[in-house]
Amino acid sequence: MELKGSLLSVREDVRVLDATIRDGGLVNDFYFSDEFVKDLYQMNVKAGVDYMEFGYKASKDIFDTEKFGKWKFCDEDDLRAIVGDNNTNLKLSAMADVGRCDYKTDIINRSDSALDMIRVATYINTMPEALAMIEDAANKGYETTCNIMAISNCQEGDVRYALEELAKSPVDAIYIVDSYGSLYPEQMRRITQFYMDITDKYGKKIGIHAHNNQQCAFANTIEALSIGASFLDATVNGLGRGAGNCSLEGLIGFLKNPNYKLTPVLRFIEKQIVPLKESGVIWGYDIPYLLTGLLDQHPRTAIAATTQKNTSYSDFYHMLMDRD
Amino acid sequence: MELKGSLLSVREDVRVLDATIRDGGLVNDFYFSDEFVKDLYQMNVKAGVDYMEFGYKASKDIFDTEKFGKWKFCDEDDLRAIVGDNNTNLKLSAMADVGRCDYKTDIINRSDSALDMIRVATYINTMPEALAMIEDAANKGYETTCNIMAISNCQEGDVRYALEELAKSPVDAIYIVDSYGSLYPEQMRRITQFYMDITDKYGKKIGIHAHNNQQCAFANTIEALSIGASFLDATVNGLGRGAGNCSLEGLIGFLKNPNYKLTPVLRFIEKQIVPLKESGVIWGYDIPYLLTGLLDQHPRTAIAATTQKNTSYSDFYHMLMDRD
Repeated sequence: MELKGSLLSVREDVRVLDATIRDGGLVNDFYFSDEFVKDLYQMNVKAGVDYMEFGYKASKDIFDTEKFGKWKFCDEDDLRAIVGDNNTNLKLSAMADVGRCDYKTDIINRSDSALDMIRVATYINTMPEALAMIEDAANKGYETTCNIMAISNCQEGDVRYALEELAKSPVDAIYIVDSYGSLYPEQMRRITQFYMDITDKYGKKIGIHAHNNQQCAFANTIEALSIGASFLDATVNGLGRGAGNCSLEGLIGFLKNPNYKLTPVLRFIEKQIVPLKESGVIWGYDIPYLLTGLLDQHPRTAIAATTQKNTSYSDFYHMLMDRD
Repeated sequence: MELKGSLLSVREDVRVLDATIRDGGLVNDFYFSDEFVKDLYQMNVKAGVDYMEFGYKASKDIFDTEKFGKWKFCDEDDLRAIVGDNNTNLKLSAMADVGRCDYKTDIINRSDSALDMIRVATYINTMPEALAMIEDAANKGYETTCNIMAISNCQEGDVRYALEELAKSPVDAIYIVDSYGSLYPEQMRRITQFYMDITDKYGKKIGIHAHNNQQCAFANTIEALSIGASFLDATVNGLGRGAGNCSLEGLIGFLKNPNYKLTPVLRFIEKQIVPLKESGVIWGYDIPYLLTGLLDQHPRTAIAATTQKNTSYSDFYHMLMDRD
């Protein structure tokens, strides 16, 4: 596999996406203070981050607005209260889950929205609806991505089919999503090459969204980058579901483009992340997450174990291995 | 670069070395309870680990035995109290630092010692003494390794010279040591290939000792392995100086050789590591370690910041960048 660029060069195609609120919201049901979100927005502007994802466009028919913070739904008024007219270089995105979003009504035209990009999250078996949602969002003027989740559990033939369909769609970028944090760098390079081989000639960008179950989120992100991925997801201090994500501070530190600035990220961590941790919000590498990642399973059992402070790791491991 | 083996195959040349006491001793001045060390020894036997490193053979002229636990010195009596005759498949090692070890007197013949292997740790500028120490240990019957520390700060020409000298020496394995946790997987693959190109034809094995400053310790270890490194250092839960090391649980989980067992490691973590953490011993990824790793510096400043619970990360970063 050919490497794109070098460790010391600038890759102009790179786009950093801060998913702190969206993936971090899975830890605290999206109950972030307005001050936290405003500070994060300002941080992203100052740090030269390319996209900030505010949360989900979740269906209010399916999810109770009393049980989740506002960033589960990303209403326009709530976005505007943070970003005003967003006269900055930072683009804004929201995620729309297949089957859990009333996209026809809840996603308005880009010209009327604070959002610039809609990221459609799908499992491999719901690609037809994902393609319809991408078409809808593109017609409304948005940049779009398709985030194929749990890729480590997919059949290669199915992924090939999905990529071929996406290649013909208006989607701008196609994400490799290691939902279970089960992939190793060697696999991540091969998968990135596989995505590139099918979609690069159609001008599609490749994205990478990694989880840190086996402490490979950052490594997998920069390894996918080295093969040609250009949309890079990260969250501040790795804040995200379970073992969390590629850390934004690690990624910004690594990238050689001088437009990216580390100091605003460090200041935000001092001001907002240190108190958040002290308040008892828990995320990041821990043994139960290692084990679900190792066994390529959804982290829900590990989240339950960690929340209950259950440290019977060997019992937990043997429970996971019983997959009949 | 050609990959050796695959992610699903067994590489018979692999040797796992548990450095928990030796690198972890840098966190607590080697004050481990005998119960901790005995349990760790039993764990390593049951887990199929190949080598257990007990600590250093440090000079008692240089280091005060009142100020360090016994594993700074690894006296025979202390080793025997843990392992008896060590009638197991687990081999035992100790580290001897160039300039900080009275190796001529303190390292006795292997036939009289519980130890099987002496690992000589050196900086690139003290290679002549390292070679003398390797010669001495080999003459006494030991397996030997040479651990060239802080490799990220070395000139390539100097490393080439060191490797050519080591190729002619009796050393069994030559370690890549990323002391500052500053290397990325791409670099680790290149460095491993560089080591292999010079020393493989002389039958030398390559080892990897990684630090987790940028959360690459595990990824770098398995990436070096994929190119041909076979001696793999790890510590339980990454216990080690600063950001810590490649985790043994991650590594044992990754390796496909059925001789390696994960359950004993998980049981040890439950019994000994959870209470150790609760007692206030601190190690593992944190922002100051990320920053020294990123800037390829010794972690001593980060250790001081972390110990003082100093979370002024941006000030710390700018202090580190002032390198005039």
